[in-house]
Amino acid sequence: MIKINENYLKLQASYLFSDIARKVAAFQDANPEKDIIRLGIGDVTRALPAACTNAFHAAIDEMASDSGFRGYGPEQGYDFLREAIAENDFQARGADISADEIFVSDGAKCDSGNIQELFTTDAKIAIPDPVYPVYLDTNVMAGRTGNFADGRYEGIIYLDANKENNYIPALPAETPDLIYLCFPNNPTGATITKEGLKMWVDYAIENKALILFDAAYEAFIRDESLPKSIYEVEGAREVAIEFRSFSKNAGFTGTRCAYTVVPKECAAFDAEGGKQLLHPLWNRRHCTKFNGVSYPVQRAAEAVYSDAGKAQTQELVAGYLKNADLIVSEIKSLGYDFVGGDHSPYIWIEANSDSWDFFDMLLNKTGVVCTPGAGFGKCGEGYIRLSAFNSFENVALAMERIKKALA
Amino acid sequence: MIKINENYLKLQASYLFSDIARKVAAFQDANPEKDIIRLGIGDVTRALPAACTNAFHAAIDEMASDSGFRGYGPEQGYDFLREAIAENDFQARGADISADEIFVSDGAKCDSGNIQELFTTDAKIAIPDPVYPVYLDTNVMAGRTGNFADGRYEGIIYLDANKENNYIPALPAETPDLIYLCFPNNPTGATITKEGLKMWVDYAIENKALILFDAAYEAFIRDESLPKSIYEVEGAREVAIEFRSFSKNAGFTGTRCAYTVVPKECAAFDAEGGKQLLHPLWNRRHCTKFNGVSYPVQRAAEAVYSDAGKAQTQELVAGYLKNADLIVSEIKSLGYDFVGGDHSPYIWIEANSDSWDFFDMLLNKTGVVCTPGAGFGKCGEGYIRLSAFNSFENVALAMERIKKALA
Repeated sequence: MIKINENYLKLQASYLFSDIARKVAAFQDANPEKDIIRLGIGDVTRALPAACTNAFHAAIDEMASDSGFRGYGPEQGYDFLREAIAENDFQARGADISADEIFVSDGAKCDSGNIQELFTTDAKIAIPDPVYPVYLDTNVMAGRTGNFADGRYEGIIYLDANKENNYIPALPAETPDLIYLCFPNNPTGATITKEGLKMWVDYAIENKALILFDAAYEAFIRDESLPKSIYEVEGAREVAIEFRSFSKNAGFTGTRCAYTVVPKECAAFDAEGGKQLLHPLWNRRHCTKFNGVSYPVQRAAEAVYSDAGKAQTQELVAGYLKNADLIVSEIKSLGYDFVGGDHSPYIWIEANSDSWDFFDMLLNKTGVVCTPGAGFGKCGEGYIRLSAFNSFENVALAMERIKKALA
Repeated sequence: MIKINENYLKLQASYLFSDIARKVAAFQDANPEKDIIRLGIGDVTRALPAACTNAFHAAIDEMASDSGFRGYGPEQGYDFLREAIAENDFQARGADISADEIFVSDGAKCDSGNIQELFTTDAKIAIPDPVYPVYLDTNVMAGRTGNFADGRYEGIIYLDANKENNYIPALPAETPDLIYLCFPNNPTGATITKEGLKMWVDYAIENKALILFDAAYEAFIRDESLPKSIYEVEGAREVAIEFRSFSKNAGFTGTRCAYTVVPKECAAFDAEGGKQLLHPLWNRRHCTKFNGVSYPVQRAAEAVYSDAGKAQTQELVAGYLKNADLIVSEIKSLGYDFVGGDHSPYIWIEANSDSWDFFDMLLNKTGVVCTPGAGFGKCGEGYIRLSAFNSFENVALAMERIKKALA
């Protein structure tokens, strides 16, 4: 008799975005004349950079002839892309990462979800709260948690991010084996200093733990002294894997390209305490369960690193940050406490009420859709997230309405 | 201390294609004047159909403007593609599959590798021999096998395909929970009749087992009475999941699009023996660890079902089958026993010697690269695979040389 993996039954149904959609639809039905502005989603809205679409078209033209056709590519990604990544995203910032340490994939969601397969099922996991739910859910599926009770899974070390710690979690009391970190954070928008990150790297070295560092939002960091990669911190090559994406800098959410960095020295341990390098292990996983990213998509991603591509992605990011600045200045003038928006497209606002109550109030009074913080974890209760991913016109209109309604 | 999943250490290093590459390179070095013809790989060689590249270009043009831009799509795939698949690949052949039972993905390798996550780690697995190595390796990684000994993993029920059973495995003596089947088969090229497949479906129903049916090569089936989908067999909706791909019919090996079918009635069981539907379980896995296929790629795949796309993919497949016919007729005239080539791009030839000895002999005498059967499992020893994925000119030249050398 074929039996299911019962860990799936522990998963809490995620109603966040469907509940939002239902409430928005009900509001629109009741108020057909009202113009709704969505500042809830974490999805980009502006066109792909021209450098990328040009390269994309050219690659398809290659595929249209027998002589230019490309079939299966290397599972790890083409060298042209891996080299551009290593050079521009790491070496140019003094981070010692080489092309063969880059694994190109179709999404940071996939990679950050799949990486846990490399580790024992009894690994002790530390996960920030609030955070992107994929880290937690994939560990629930793998059986690394107990049941869900009082808003949390048993067996997980939650790393609380709140006003008291300036939304940067402190080192946990209990020692974890695997530590998820995400900076700039989704959903809070808070980011970490080099010193702050160094503390985590040292902690991992000391405790033979491994850090899984999600840097999907690094492009929004404006202060050059802040780390964009964990490999800007000494010692990280031995204890950290990093996830990156073209989704937020170049608008690839619907085009799909990302990458994971596994340095050659990065290691975990076997049952006898012997060092086991993770690069060959992840390589084996990647080659066995993945067949490479679409060739034309890899060419489009490569174009992000051309001169035109760099200028165009910077312009895209600057546009969203301009939106974020406007949100920040209005929220500030309204007297709300908040974090984020300076190095992030997200602004995390203390609602001074229940998350969902604030969501309902905002929707009903202004037609603006936010995301209730409770959807990102227990520490998100009492907060809402506003996203800068929209046109400047829409953001300006939304903030105008919010100012009128809440002043 | 972070510890690795030690099941990875049981994996046998797959040297098949790297050994082939090394031997071919050595031969070319020693014989720089010799022209090598590769009939070893399972990768297509001809251009993408024009219908697909046209749709691909048009979708990129949409992504190049803010108004046409698409960000995150539905994880399960866009309705336009799911509906075209359901209608053309299933309903048109009398198989009752609806659009919402289709999960679009970036590869049948990923899906057939990931699907085992839904089941208990003590599930008893039946796997054909010879076969595509992903089914086996992903179960080794998940801990469903013992160690490797005498060419096989302990704990696996191997389904031998050999001359005695016409390369169609018989029902196993020991009852499995999960049964992998692949028809037309990679590497043998053998395929199964509707009656033969019905036997497996009935067996699965009787034993509360589940069939994972890999139909990646269905486009090569020429006899309309043979099943292209397991859902052409009564009862399969309750006990079978099917994997399909655009790789071999439309040449998408480097473009990446595939899909998995999970019918609404398809079920496994919980520890208490209660039915657990697999559609919501796979949906949860797919939405948690995957973020949808690139939008332009989905548009290119949709074009496979346009009138022009259908004509062009049929022409592609017919071209490879013409190559297969030539290989078959020459191998037959040389007096070798073989299977495949009629409904498959693969011809599986009894070498009358060790796989690798035949490989070396063929390369040295003719410059033609084949695949040694031993790379696909214990039952592959003594066989070699020839692939029809090349130009007709190259195949004709290869067979001319083989005829001269082996006659």
